[in-house]
Amino acid sequence: MRGHPTDHAGLEILRFDECLRLLSTVPVGRVGFLADGEIVVLPVNHAMDGQDVVFRAARGSKLSAAEGQELAAFEADDYDEQAQSGWSVLVSGRAEAVYAEAEIQRLSRLGLQPWATGAQRPFWIRIRSSSVTGRQIR
Amino acid sequence: MRGHPTDHAGLEILRFDECLRLLSTVPVGRVGFLADGEIVVLPVNHAMDGQDVVFRAARGSKLSAAEGQELAAFEADDYDEQAQSGWSVLVSGRAEAVYAEAEIQRLSRLGLQPWATGAQRPFWIRIRSSSVTGRQIR
Repeated sequence: MRGHPTDHAGLEILRFDECLRLLSTVPVGRVGFLADGEIVVLPVNHAMDGQDVVFRAARGSKLSAAEGQELAAFEADDYDEQAQSGWSVLVSGRAEAVYAEAEIQRLSRLGLQPWATGAQRPFWIRIRSSSVTGRQIR
Repeated sequence: MRGHPTDHAGLEILRFDECLRLLSTVPVGRVGFLADGEIVVLPVNHAMDGQDVVFRAARGSKLSAAEGQELAAFEADDYDEQAQSGWSVLVSGRAEAVYAEAEIQRLSRLGLQPWATGAQRPFWIRIRSSSVTGRQIR
């Protein structure tokens, strides 16, 4: 296994391709955005579309942020508490709501199944990534 | 088990005391803050100090946000992929660096052990909570 350079906190820096691969290995990540002057971080079932993150939403704060094409982030991680090892990846970019029918059709074929809550999640939201970075502790 | 009211997305709304209890059941959560005009969401090993979240940091963007007493959030969650069930809790507030010696002594007794990375994490950061909210899917 090749060694990784480390950052100021001693964490190993993951390569871009490693980050994209890891993002698709977990069913849940967290979207971060601003709402009513506060930072909000909420879990979502996501899928990857190239280097963008997509997920489904009901009408609410996530959709409002996306309709405003606001700053957004997406974080996913996985860790082993016993081994005290793990990784995390951060996607930074802007949220956007997807309304084009052809695009919705295409995203629907990604196989994303939101967990059942009794409410519909009819809207697709994309986080268009401007950077994808990751770290690991081994 | 008592029923919970649900929100617009069909998620069950957790009570304040349930949120605080759940936050202390996981070793890792994610802190959200603004850095260089972007939203950053990064995992940290945390502990609870009443209804505030505390964690240790190296010099870096988390400490800078805390020294500016900036908006911050903390999210923790846990989920069962097979059952498609889980919970999440969001703490909203402001970050602050803890420099008072007596306070650092007190926090040091919370038993928080950051995972080893080869770098020191000499600084304590508190997220002083202004709200604590949570949701679950059962």
